[in-house]
Amino acid sequence: VLPDRLRALRQLLSRLPGVGEKTAQRYVLFLASEAGTLAADLGAELALLPERIRPCTRCRNLAEVDESGAALCAVCRDPRRDPSLLCVVARVQDLLAVERSLAMRGRYFVLGRLLSPLDGVGPDELPLEDLVQRVREDGVKEVILATPPSVDGEATALLLARELASLGVAVSRIASGVPHGGDLEFSDQITLGRAISGRRSVEGPR
Amino acid sequence: VLPDRLRALRQLLSRLPGVGEKTAQRYVLFLASEAGTLAADLGAELALLPERIRPCTRCRNLAEVDESGAALCAVCRDPRRDPSLLCVVARVQDLLAVERSLAMRGRYFVLGRLLSPLDGVGPDELPLEDLVQRVREDGVKEVILATPPSVDGEATALLLARELASLGVAVSRIASGVPHGGDLEFSDQITLGRAISGRRSVEGPR
Repeated sequence: VLPDRLRALRQLLSRLPGVGEKTAQRYVLFLASEAGTLAADLGAELALLPERIRPCTRCRNLAEVDESGAALCAVCRDPRRDPSLLCVVARVQDLLAVERSLAMRGRYFVLGRLLSPLDGVGPDELPLEDLVQRVREDGVKEVILATPPSVDGEATALLLARELASLGVAVSRIASGVPHGGDLEFSDQITLGRAISGRRSVEGPR
Repeated sequence: VLPDRLRALRQLLSRLPGVGEKTAQRYVLFLASEAGTLAADLGAELALLPERIRPCTRCRNLAEVDESGAALCAVCRDPRRDPSLLCVVARVQDLLAVERSLAMRGRYFVLGRLLSPLDGVGPDELPLEDLVQRVREDGVKEVILATPPSVDGEATALLLARELASLGVAVSRIASGVPHGGDLEFSDQITLGRAISGRRSVEGPR
């Protein structure tokens, strides 16, 4: 009953993350019935995306292509960032999360993926050379490994720490433990074990 | 940190039903990182939508515009449909739901909205003349009022029944009661009341 064009649109929309057939149909009917210009605006914006958005040439964050054809992201363009501090993350999503914390005044390097033996992702699939080159050329003094505290994330952090060991830079790993507002009673064993092994000394008032 | 173009895209996507800022951002990052042609394909399909999809000129269902510029939906084009049976629904979504039931062999009329005094939708906002004209011209013998069993849906059904009374057609209302697989214990009072007042006689074996 749905016109072919709308069925094609539904099929494309159902490829978005977390979108099934039903949600896609809901979007399609909304877009087709909406009186405004949402479908047209969205169509124009999406059509521009492939040519206008590229991975940043320095850090692989998402960046807009400028007039000269270069793609440098907002963080790499910001002169107030400390170039000697480099935060390595797995994905752009993670970079955005670290930015929201306001705790990172340096720059980033987006790996794009994690080591994952089960999925056939070995060290050769990671951009290790690009990372080493970035550390060497930019005068990086400390690398913060902000891969997630999962099996793959820890393995990746270990590999990167080894690769970076010979470069004479400080390498650190983000802390893992009970999250802010979290309950010890409901924390899993590994999280609680990490919170304890990663404890920091508390200095009393002097 | 997100490029302006992607922020614009996120803002547009967050206008889809049930999509907030976070979900929109998830879609944006997926579309920007996906290696395939999803963004371009989706952009092309959405750009076509406003000129290619129109309300069906006969029933207001969604229809594709054909070469001659006419827009007749799949149901209205189907010669096997019984033109003497007309099902009135509020929205295209409801038409699709009735179609899925395989219980409707006639055609449809999509009102587009329900009476809603609280939202300022009175009888003048409903396409009553179009409906009456449709009933007269197509030799309709029975009109099934399939507006939802809500306050607004019932009020609309009552109004339509009055409007159609003088046309000499049978007018019926879809049944309301305990849904298939539903539990009497957890049915609300109104549903159970309707199930009882709408009871049908059961004939024993002869």
